[in-house]
Formats: sequence, structure tokens, C-alpha cells
Amino acid sequence: MTEPSSTGRRRGRGARERILAAATELFTAQGINATGMEQLTSVAGVSKRTLYTHFDSKDALAHAYLQELENGLLPAITAGPDPRQQLLAVFDHRPQDTAGPVRGCPFLNAAVEVPDPAHPVHRLAAAYKIEFSRRLAAVARRAGARDPEALGEQLALLYDGAAARGTALNSDRPGASARSVASLLIDSAVGAAEQERTPGTEEPSTG
Amino acid sequence: MTEPSSTGRRRGRGARERILAAATELFTAQGINATGMEQLTSVAGVSKRTLYTHFDSKDALAHAYLQELENGLLPAITAGPDPRQQLLAVFDHRPQDTAGPVRGCPFLNAAVEVPDPAHPVHRLAAAYKIEFSRRLAAVARRAGARDPEALGEQLALLYDGAAARGTALNSDRPGASARSVASLLIDSAVGAAEQERTPGTEEPSTG
Repeated sequence: MTEPSSTGRRRGRGARERILAAATELFTAQGINATGMEQLTSVAGVSKRTLYTHFDSKDALAHAYLQELENGLLPAITAGPDPRQQLLAVFDHRPQDTAGPVRGCPFLNAAVEVPDPAHPVHRLAAAYKIEFSRRLAAVARRAGARDPEALGEQLALLYDGAAARGTALNSDRPGASARSVASLLIDSAVGAAEQERTPGTEEPSTG
Repeated sequence: MTEPSSTGRRRGRGARERILAAATELFTAQGINATGMEQLTSVAGVSKRTLYTHFDSKDALAHAYLQELENGLLPAITAGPDPRQQLLAVFDHRPQDTAGPVRGCPFLNAAVEVPDPAHPVHRLAAAYKIEFSRRLAAVARRAGARDPEALGEQLALLYDGAAARGTALNSDRPGASARSVASLLIDSAVGAAEQERTPGTEEPSTG
């Protein structure tokens, strides 16, 4: 410990990153419950003591893993110039770009693995899923949808269906199926709004 | 052992049923990986030896648990006189009618917990999910849908979305949302088919 503060912090950051990278790899591929602390330390190349210095428990590590994913995924939803394309682009995106089996959505998976709705890991997963639909609703509003909140919720539902079904079937096909239904729903929601805004149309506004 | 064969068999059946009931309760509430053999024997009221007489491993028990669920759930999909009502009724159904948190679909959950697509438990879950959409397609055909396979797959996707999102949010609301989208899709698929069958309509058949 010649330069305790700077070296300690640098060393600490490196270990923390390696632990999070190992957690991302193993939790994604095997699930949270099937991954032990032994394997995490081995893949991260750290001692058990180092791991526990950074994360009190596997729960704390699972929470940090999802939080890091969240920070990476959420900004992508609202980026891009064409709102309609943006709404559809979420269906082209595979959250875990790994070579192994399709593993769908890490937040849905965590909610399955940690059933207690009051558990911090489950709460984070639920909060992400709500924020995801809110962001889609914001894009739907920019796209001119009549009821953007409803459309955001429907698209989130389709996304979750594609993720869960894709995981069960180990296939990207549910994603393509969800995308085509999403396209229909967007056209219907935007078309209805446009019709309402156009004077002299056959159907009067009911909204 | 005065009447070895009959008493043995009777006793055996009772134990098997109790073990499966315990597995259904615990796997549903906690998940497969979070449930230990100790707890299973304790809730079932059997010895470890008895449990292993009936099921070689926890995997074998998880497989039997899903198979029993499958046998109970699949026939319900194709029953009933009104095919349109039947297609919508799947969204009113909560597979696990327990007092605890919403746990969605046991087959989707098992696929998350057992990631290997070649594992017998994952394979059974995938096969169920495919059979589920096939049965919906059969009902969709009876309802007069233009492309019953596509509609069956879309409804299965919505169902899976409601199950997965309902689990994450601990809510039945995604089910209601899925039902309303399903209603739209059914009307659209059946309406299109009816339009094609009616002579003298504006749009010629493209199918």
C-alpha cells in the first residue's frame, strides 16, 4: 500500500468490472439461481474476499447486474429521428447478443427467478418493465398515436411475449411475429389519430 | 408386508401424488432451482428414499410436474361451442390459481430456469408452447380465420406476453391488455376471411 487511495481505487474498479462482466455472462447463460459464488469468483478471476468487498451478497450482485443493463438499454429506446421506425426497432433488438441459446429479456428472467415482488431484484425488474413501456409511450406520442399510453403498453406486451416465447422455443421467430403485430397496432393507432384530426372524414371523433 | 402387491401399490400411488402436489406448490411459488429435495420431502410428507423411488432426480420430478400440468391444461383450449369466445377465454385463465404473487406460465418459467434447449424439461416446455399455438390455430380455423396458423401464433405470443409481463409486474392487467389486442386480431382475421368469401366485395381475394 504505497499509494493507498489511487491504486486501491484503480484496482477496485478493475475487480468490480470483472465481477460484473462475469455476472452478466453467467446470469444470462445459466440464470441467477444456478450460478454460484465460487463460479463467479473463478470466471471474474478474483478472490471470494474481493467479491464480497464489492457486493454484500449474490442478491446485491444480481441487482447491480440488472442496473447496469438498464443504464445501457433504456437510452436506446428514445434515440433516433423516425418515431415509427424506433417503435419497430425494439423488436429487432436481442438484449443478450450471445452465441448460446436465446435467453430473451434478463429482467423478465430475473422476475421468474426471484418470485417475491417485494425483493429488490424483482422490484428493479418490474420498474424497468414499467419504464420500458413509458418510453415506448413517449415515442408513440411523437409518432402521433391517438392513445400513446395504451400503444406503449401493447408494444411492451408484445415485446415481452417475443422475449418469453423466444426463450422457450430458442428462436428469434416470435420476435418477427411480434414486429408484424406491432406494425399493425402502430398503423391503427396513428391512422385513427390522423383520421380524427382530418376534418370532413366519415367517422366522427369518439375520443 | 402382509399384502405386498396391492398395499404397496396403493401406498406408492398416494406417495407419488403427494410428491407431485408438493412439487406443484413449491415449483410454482419458488421456482424449480430454488426448491430443494429436503423441502419437497418435508412438504410431501415422504422420506427421501420414497421420493427417489418415484423420481430419479429433481429434473425427473420437474418433468413429471410439467407433464401433469400439460395434461390438465391442453384439453381446455379446444373445448366449448363458440370458437371466438374460446380464443378469448385463454386470456381469462390464470394457470396457477394460488393466493401468492402472479407466477404466469409454468412452462415459460421452466424454460427460463432450465436454459439448455436440449434438456428434457426445456424441451417439454417448448413442445407445450408449440402445441398451445397449434390448438389455438385449430380453434381459429373453426372461427373462420383467414390464416389460422398465423392467428394461433399471434394469440400464443400475446398469451406469453401477458404471462411474462404479469409475472414481472405481479399484476393481471397485462392479461386484460392482451385480451383486447387479441380481440382486435381475431376480428381482423375473421373479418378479412368473411370479406373474401362474400361475392361482389370491393377487394378481390389475394389468398
